[in-house]
Amino acid sequence: MEQLDYSNQAAWTRISGDKQSPIALSDTLAIKNNFETVLSFNYKHLANYVRDTGAGIEVGLEGTANIGNRPFSLKQFHIHTPSEHTINNIAYDAEIHFVHAASDGRLAVVAILVQSGATSQTYDAVLAHMNKTEHFEIPIDDIMPASKTYYHYIGSLTTPPLTENVEWYVLKQPVTLSVEQLNHLKTFYSHNNRDLQALNGRPIISSN
Amino acid sequence: MEQLDYSNQAAWTRISGDKQSPIALSDTLAIKNNFETVLSFNYKHLANYVRDTGAGIEVGLEGTANIGNRPFSLKQFHIHTPSEHTINNIAYDAEIHFVHAASDGRLAVVAILVQSGATSQTYDAVLAHMNKTEHFEIPIDDIMPASKTYYHYIGSLTTPPLTENVEWYVLKQPVTLSVEQLNHLKTFYSHNNRDLQALNGRPIISSN
Repeated sequence: MEQLDYSNQAAWTRISGDKQSPIALSDTLAIKNNFETVLSFNYKHLANYVRDTGAGIEVGLEGTANIGNRPFSLKQFHIHTPSEHTINNIAYDAEIHFVHAASDGRLAVVAILVQSGATSQTYDAVLAHMNKTEHFEIPIDDIMPASKTYYHYIGSLTTPPLTENVEWYVLKQPVTLSVEQLNHLKTFYSHNNRDLQALNGRPIISSN
Repeated sequence: MEQLDYSNQAAWTRISGDKQSPIALSDTLAIKNNFETVLSFNYKHLANYVRDTGAGIEVGLEGTANIGNRPFSLKQFHIHTPSEHTINNIAYDAEIHFVHAASDGRLAVVAILVQSGATSQTYDAVLAHMNKTEHFEIPIDDIMPASKTYYHYIGSLTTPPLTENVEWYVLKQPVTLSVEQLNHLKTFYSHNNRDLQALNGRPIISSN
C-alpha cells in the first residue's frame, strides 16, 4: 500500500462543490426516514427590515426553530421566483427560504414552496415595508404550511458563497400568494432561481 | 443594489476549503455549550478486518452511536500518530478516529486522544490481526474514555478527499497505550498527522 505523503500535504486533492443546491426532489429517489426529525418553529411576529439584497427580497426576522431536538436561530427569510427546488419535476411559482444557524455554525434552511391562490397578508406587510428598516408586524402564519412534512438532504446555499454543509428541509405542502402578488414579486426579480445542481449520489429523505 | 447575474451562474464564486481539520482546540477559544449534545456509543465487540490504508491503520468495526438524539452508524476506526488535534497547545501521542455516518450522509467523527500509560488490550487485538480479514474479538472499552465530555466544531476529514461538513467531537479524557505499543504503531507510520488548519472564525464548543 503506497502511503499518503504527509511531507507534501499541499499536494493533497480536495473534493468539494459536489453537494450543491437546489436539486430536483422526487418521490422516486427519496427514501423514507425511519428516524423522524421533528421540526417546530417559533418565529416573532415583528420584522426588523425588508431589503433587496441583489439576490432577492430579504426580510429581517428573528425567532427560533427546533430541528431534531437541536436549537437553531432564525437569521432572515428571502424569496426566489420561480422555485429553486422542483418536486416530481414540478417547479412552483416561488420559494421562500427561512435561514437558520446553530451555535456551532451549522446552517439549516427551511424552504416553503409557493403557488398561486389566496392573497398572503404576510407578503402585503413585506411589500409595504420594502427598503425600510423600521420594525413592523408580520403575520408569518400564512406563509407557513400547516403540515411540516418535508424532503431533507444536505446541500448548499443557493447564492454565493454557495457554502456547503447546509441542512435542507423542503416542506411538501405549499402556501399561496395571489397572482397579483406573484406578478408584483417578479417586477423585482423575473427569475432569481439557481439552476438545478447534480445530486451526486446524495440521499434524499422523505418524512411521513 | 446590483443584482446577482442569474444568466451567468457559472461565474459565481464559491467559497470552500475554509472549514478544514484538524485544528488547535483551546479552552480560551471554546464557548460553553448551553445546549448539551449527549453522546452514547454501542459498538460491537467483534471486528471485521484490520488494514493499512496508506493513511493509517484502520479497523473495520460496526456499531451505532447516538449523537444529540440522532442515530449514526459506525463505519470504521483508524489511528493517527501523533495526535492531529491539539488541546491547549498540547499534542498527544496518538489520536483514534471513530468515523460515523447518518442516513442523510452526514459524517461525525469521535476523536479519542491517546497518551502513554497502561497497555491497551484493544491495540494488542488489532495488532494480532493486521492485514487479516477474519473476524476477531476486540475489547474496545479500553480505548473509550469513561467521560464523554468533548470539544465540538464543524470541520473536515483529515485525509483526501478532505470532505467538509463533518461534525467533530474530540473527547477531553485521553486513553492510554503502552510506550511499547506506541513505538510499535510508529513502525507503520512515524507521523500520519495532518498539519493544523486555520479556524477561520468557526465556533468551538466545549461540553461540561
